[in-house]
Amino acid sequence: MGDIMNTYIRKCHYHETDQMGVAHHTSYIKWLEEARIFLMDEIGFSYKRMEEAGVISPIVSITCNYKMPIKFDEKAYITIHVDKYTGAKFLLSYEIRKEDGTLCLTANSSHCFLKNGQVISIRRELKEVDECFLRYIENNND
Amino acid sequence: MGDIMNTYIRKCHYHETDQMGVAHHTSYIKWLEEARIFLMDEIGFSYKRMEEAGVISPIVSITCNYKMPIKFDEKAYITIHVDKYTGAKFLLSYEIRKEDGTLCLTANSSHCFLKNGQVISIRRELKEVDECFLRYIENNND
Amino acid sequence: MGDIMNTYIRKCHYHETDQMGVAHHTSYIKWLEEARIFLMDEIGFSYKRMEEAGVISPIVSITCNYKMPIKFDEKAYITIHVDKYTGAKFLLSYEIRKEDGTLCLTANSSHCFLKNGQVISIRRELKEVDECFLRYIENNND
Amino acid sequence: MGDIMNTYIRKCHYHETDQMGVAHHTSYIKWLEEARIFLMDEIGFSYKRMEEAGVISPIVSITCNYKMPIKFDEKAYITIHVDKYTGAKFLLSYEIRKEDGTLCLTANSSHCFLKNGQVISIRRELKEVDECFLRYIENNND
Repeated sequence: MGDIMNTYIRKCHYHETDQMGVAHHTSYIKWLEEARIFLMDEIGFSYKRMEEAGVISPIVSITCNYKMPIKFDEKAYITIHVDKYTGAKFLLSYEIRKEDGTLCLTANSSHCFLKNGQVISIRRELKEVDECFLRYIENNND
Repeated sequence: MGDIMNTYIRKCHYHETDQMGVAHHTSYIKWLEEARIFLMDEIGFSYKRMEEAGVISPIVSITCNYKMPIKFDEKAYITIHVDKYTGAKFLLSYEIRKEDGTLCLTANSSHCFLKNGQVISIRRELKEVDECFLRYIENNND
Repeated sequence: MGDIMNTYIRKCHYHETDQMGVAHHTSYIKWLEEARIFLMDEIGFSYKRMEEAGVISPIVSITCNYKMPIKFDEKAYITIHVDKYTGAKFLLSYEIRKEDGTLCLTANSSHCFLKNGQVISIRRELKEVDECFLRYIENNND
Repeated sequence: MGDIMNTYIRKCHYHETDQMGVAHHTSYIKWLEEARIFLMDEIGFSYKRMEEAGVISPIVSITCNYKMPIKFDEKAYITIHVDKYTGAKFLLSYEIRKEDGTLCLTANSSHCFLKNGQVISIRRELKEVDECFLRYIENNND
């Protein structure tokens, strides 16, 4: 984890701050979503394409630990790691750091796959996504 | 315009502020959207019901004039007025005031109706909505 | 917990949905923030007043378990419970339910108090808030 | 206007869509804000630096004309033009296009400068910003 290929970088926008003078705590969670979209691009099957195939991947749970705030115009370096993938669900872990390496947030999330409102196995319903996941995990083994 | 029946009231939430220490300028525009949903309830045909009937009413244009900021925990009093309604499009005007009457924002927006991605006349496609609009306008004539 | 006095109720706004057709997962987390502001009002020392006294109460960690989505125009019933309060930090738990009682989200969050960027004990720095917390907890003992 | 140097490019994020299945109408307005921050970087005096010098530049008015929606994962090409600059206020115009050139939004906004809550002339208060603006306008004369 943490090699450059898996790092999603983005600046904190002004509209993402609140009157505490730092990024609002939900802004980081939006960035984690962006990092997941980025991950799917890395995996080789974009989230958009998966949705167009009728499959969505909603969030089942999320935990965030806030260590240090990110300020307006600062860059967030977001690394994302597939902790577990079963074909029916997957667990991710994340770190957000500043440019100088300061750890700002650690997080975990779990996700399932839905088609027509029903929980499905992507392995059975959209084999190509499953293969992309498996290949990615093999190539990114720690 | 401005009688209590047509006033949508809501507090400014913390997550709607930015680091200027007041509501972000897009927050007011979200409140105008809420006021339109409220207006449809007043009219007697909820926006939700209209969407379930396959009709959406996107924004075509909007103009906002910012006069005074609203701060966290302050109440915004939003009045909304139907300036024009043709069956195919409608024009609205808005005012946002503080509890003490201070004028904070004036705005105008225009809207059309879409069904299956096509511009439609609600008068032809969903007569009941048209009747609700006409009755409302008659009852709220200035 | 869960008596009407501690329930914060609010509708899901249109601008809080995403293209999955339900409230975006960060929208619930904004509602939890609103519920905390509401809790402080219940406690008798508003968050606004605390901030004006120079004390903020940032989020240290949050966990959310998503059970069922809330849709546009549906009401969220948010109950909030003080699980622990030490004068220096506090732990909260939440439930979000629909009007019919369906459980949509469970969550936990932890918070500290900051003054001039430093972690403080509210017991020492702003005794009145501490007393409000203690009185509230005594009155809401399960 | 419209040369590559002045074009701010960014993808539409999932959390910026609503249940119409396209970017929420306030999302475009957030992108315009980002484009203004980008413009200040181009001008040579970042918005962050200006704020650190005690000057903010709030929005006085905005008009948006929505032509075509931007969808999730599509790139928005945002061009921004300084229509007028007086040292005390400035007017901007914008266009948002898709990669294929389709025009999605035209907009105008006006802004002033504030210091300690008072309207100021940046020419008098922060000469360096004024010089950056003047140089930029000279170099970008149509």
